[in-house]
Parts: sequence; structure tokens; C-alpha cells
Amino acid sequence: MEKTGVYDFRAEVYSLDFRRQLTIPALSNYLLYAATCHASDRGFGYDDMVKQNMLWVLSRLIIDVKDNKRLSEPIRVWTWIEGVDRILTFRCFEVTTLQGETIGYARSSWAAINSDTRRPISLENIGLQEYMVDRPCPITFDRYEMPTDVPVHAVPYTVKYSDLDLNGHFNSVKYMEAILDLFDIELYRTRSIARFDISYHAEAFYGAELVLSKKQVNEHEYMASICKEGKPICRAKVIFNAPTGKNI
Amino acid sequence: MEKTGVYDFRAEVYSLDFRRQLTIPALSNYLLYAATCHASDRGFGYDDMVKQNMLWVLSRLIIDVKDNKRLSEPIRVWTWIEGVDRILTFRCFEVTTLQGETIGYARSSWAAINSDTRRPISLENIGLQEYMVDRPCPITFDRYEMPTDVPVHAVPYTVKYSDLDLNGHFNSVKYMEAILDLFDIELYRTRSIARFDISYHAEAFYGAELVLSKKQVNEHEYMASICKEGKPICRAKVIFNAPTGKNI
Repeated sequence: MEKTGVYDFRAEVYSLDFRRQLTIPALSNYLLYAATCHASDRGFGYDDMVKQNMLWVLSRLIIDVKDNKRLSEPIRVWTWIEGVDRILTFRCFEVTTLQGETIGYARSSWAAINSDTRRPISLENIGLQEYMVDRPCPITFDRYEMPTDVPVHAVPYTVKYSDLDLNGHFNSVKYMEAILDLFDIELYRTRSIARFDISYHAEAFYGAELVLSKKQVNEHEYMASICKEGKPICRAKVIFNAPTGKNI
Repeated sequence: MEKTGVYDFRAEVYSLDFRRQLTIPALSNYLLYAATCHASDRGFGYDDMVKQNMLWVLSRLIIDVKDNKRLSEPIRVWTWIEGVDRILTFRCFEVTTLQGETIGYARSSWAAINSDTRRPISLENIGLQEYMVDRPCPITFDRYEMPTDVPVHAVPYTVKYSDLDLNGHFNSVKYMEAILDLFDIELYRTRSIARFDISYHAEAFYGAELVLSKKQVNEHEYMASICKEGKPICRAKVIFNAPTGKNI
């Protein structure tokens, strides 16, 4: 079995936004699907974990897009395990055209939890190490602080049936959708997303009353968070490209 | 070119709900994708229409599910044109297992509109007739009235960036999601959907302030509507199967 997994995707019409570009949530679905297949094929997928009373939990995902336009062409996703800590494993992605030109990268970290106690489990004996690959992914997991001196735009959000994943949790990709919906459409008319960086701190279930908020940090950067009972369950940073002259 | 199109789908993990069943919106995406491919391959797809300044608009869709559980197995979608009026064309679907067992049917009607005037166009010269197939689809487009004497459950809804399709309209599948989110999760724990019947009366755009409402008609049936400025832009009927003893 090859260490790196390779999966092809062709954007369905329903995964394109009003600019006819693949959305970041749709791209994330592809990445997570590639991760799922890669893990299943190598003996540490969803079903293998469930048998041992364990679940994979996405901890952080950073996506860098170099060429938004080409994402809606057929794309190839390469995914590999870059490293394994005691508690976290790091999985990287490269997104290319079918001809091999790079159009984006992503880096993710994952924990395995016990499905009863919800506590993290040591990753030492899951068999990830033998699939580690030394392949470049030019994204680092930088720390950042939420600025405190800028105005906040906040809206309430209640977790609904269609937000739930197959574990009954607020789906990690729906967090992204909710955050991207905080931005006015005027922004999307002239600007595309260069980086989407999201980290997950706690689970949310059906009916949870959340507060979504965002702050503008500078011309291109925004910070966002999703809070439950006053505590952030998710934080994100969104960096937009400079505006194009073209108004869609 | 065969008159009937055949397309295979394999439910991605992110298309399953908390019961690990394929959602009706995800199934609808498959059906609409199959319709899109079938039309493109036969010369009356999205790109062919745009060249003539036309767009396809979904008018009504009824989905009957015989076996919800098997929808999350690999499925085969058969789609064909059943008839063509002056203004509407009728497209049917059969959903089977890969072994050919029927697990559902769907019937849809579509209009073609001029993309500038938004007015319907005669379907006489688009070339649909030569692909008409006489194949059974046991669903009829019955008329129904919204009952007036039962309590209404209504909630506001604002159309967001992630709700838009590639034409900048409130995506037809997102209407379904919004309607299904009107039901409490307790209902989904013991009941699956036998029929979802939705008709589209008007378009909605970014920022539109809508009102979603539903009424219970009898033990199994609900009517729902989406209104803009007091007028229905969408109506739906949802019929649930009798509860199973199993609580998920």
C-alpha cells in the first residue's frame, strides 16, 4: 500500500457558489473524504476505530488556496501523514490539477478519543507511524491571538438537524459554512479566500444555542469564533486575497 | 445515445445524517446531478442552454423512498424524460441498488426560462422529444391545499452566501434543508421520510427575509411553506413513515 493516498474529484454543480467557484466547505468535504478513504484503506479508518471504541476528531485545519478558479476544474487530492505525537497526528494535503500543477495545500491535526469518555487516547499503537511521509507542505500551525480592541459582529445560531454529522455532532464543515456566512456577499464579489484556518475546541449538539462572531484585523484578515455559553468552541482566521477589479 | 441515463453514487460520509442515513437533500443533489449529466450528454444541458440565453428551472420534485436504510449503500439512479408540454418537461427517476432492486422513485417538472426576462420559453424546439421514454414511475403530481384550521409553526430565515447556487439564487436543495430543519430531532429518531414533495413558485436572492412555516395535517403528514413578503415562494408536503420502535 502506497503511503500517500491520491483521490480525484470533479466539482458537482451544486458545490459551486454564485461565482461558480468551489466553496471552501465543499473543498473541505473533499479533503475530509480523502482523509477518510486514506485511513480506511490503511487499517485506521472509521470502522476500525469504532471496533476499538474510538473516534477521530478533527482538531485544526488550515487550507491555503493558490488558484481559486482552477478548483472547479477536476482536481487531484494527495494526502499523507506527516507526523504523530502522543495525542495528535498531523495529516497534510496537496491539491493539484490532473496535470500535476499545485493549486493549494492543507494541513490538519487530529486526535483519537474514546467514544464513551470523550477523552483523548494515545496514538502510539494505531499503526500510523509506518505510513509517515516526508513530503513538503508549506503551512505551519502558527498561534494567533484574537484582537480585543476592534468591533465585533455577532449573530445567534441554533444547531439544526441538517447541521449534524453521522455522530450526531455539529458537523465540522457546517462550522465553516456558518463562519463564511458572516461575511457580506459584496466581499465575495471581488475577493476570494487565500487561507481558511479553523480550530475546534469543543463539541456542539442538536439545539445548542451558539453565538457566531467576527472581527476585522486588517485589510485582508478576519478572526471569527463560535461560542457556547460564553466559551469558544471554535476559532477561525480567514484571509482574503486583494480585491480583483472584476465585480461578479 | 441511450434515452435513459444511468448514474452510480456512493454516499460520502458527510452526506449521512445522525442516523447514518442519506439525507433527502443529499439524495436530491444526486438526482439533480444525474439530471444535469443526462441533459448535457444529450445536447440540452446547462452550457447548451446558456448559449441560447436560457436556464432550466426546477418547478416541482416528488421523492418517494421505499427503503431509507439502503439509500446509504451504493445506489444507481436511472433518469429519463417522460413527457414534454409546451412549458413544462417531466423527468422521472428510479433509484435502485446496484443489483437492480428498486428503493425509490422521483418525478420532477422543469421549465426553461429566458435568462434576461425570466419568462418561460416554449420547449418545442429544444430536442427533448426524441429522448422521451415510456417507463413506469408510480408517482403522480396531485394537487393539494394547505389546511387553514391547524396551528402554524413559523420561523424567520435570511438567505445567506452558502444558500446560493451558481446562478446566485437560493439553491433548490437548500429550500429542502430549511424545511426539514423545521422538524424536531425527536421525530427523526423514530421516523423516516416516505415522501418529500416540493414545488417552487418564485426565486429568492441573497439577503431575502423569508418566513418558513409548517402545519401538521394528520399523524403522518405535514405541509410547509416558505414565504417572501407574505407570498409563498415554495410549498412542500412531507409524509413520514409510521414510527419504528427503535429510538436512535
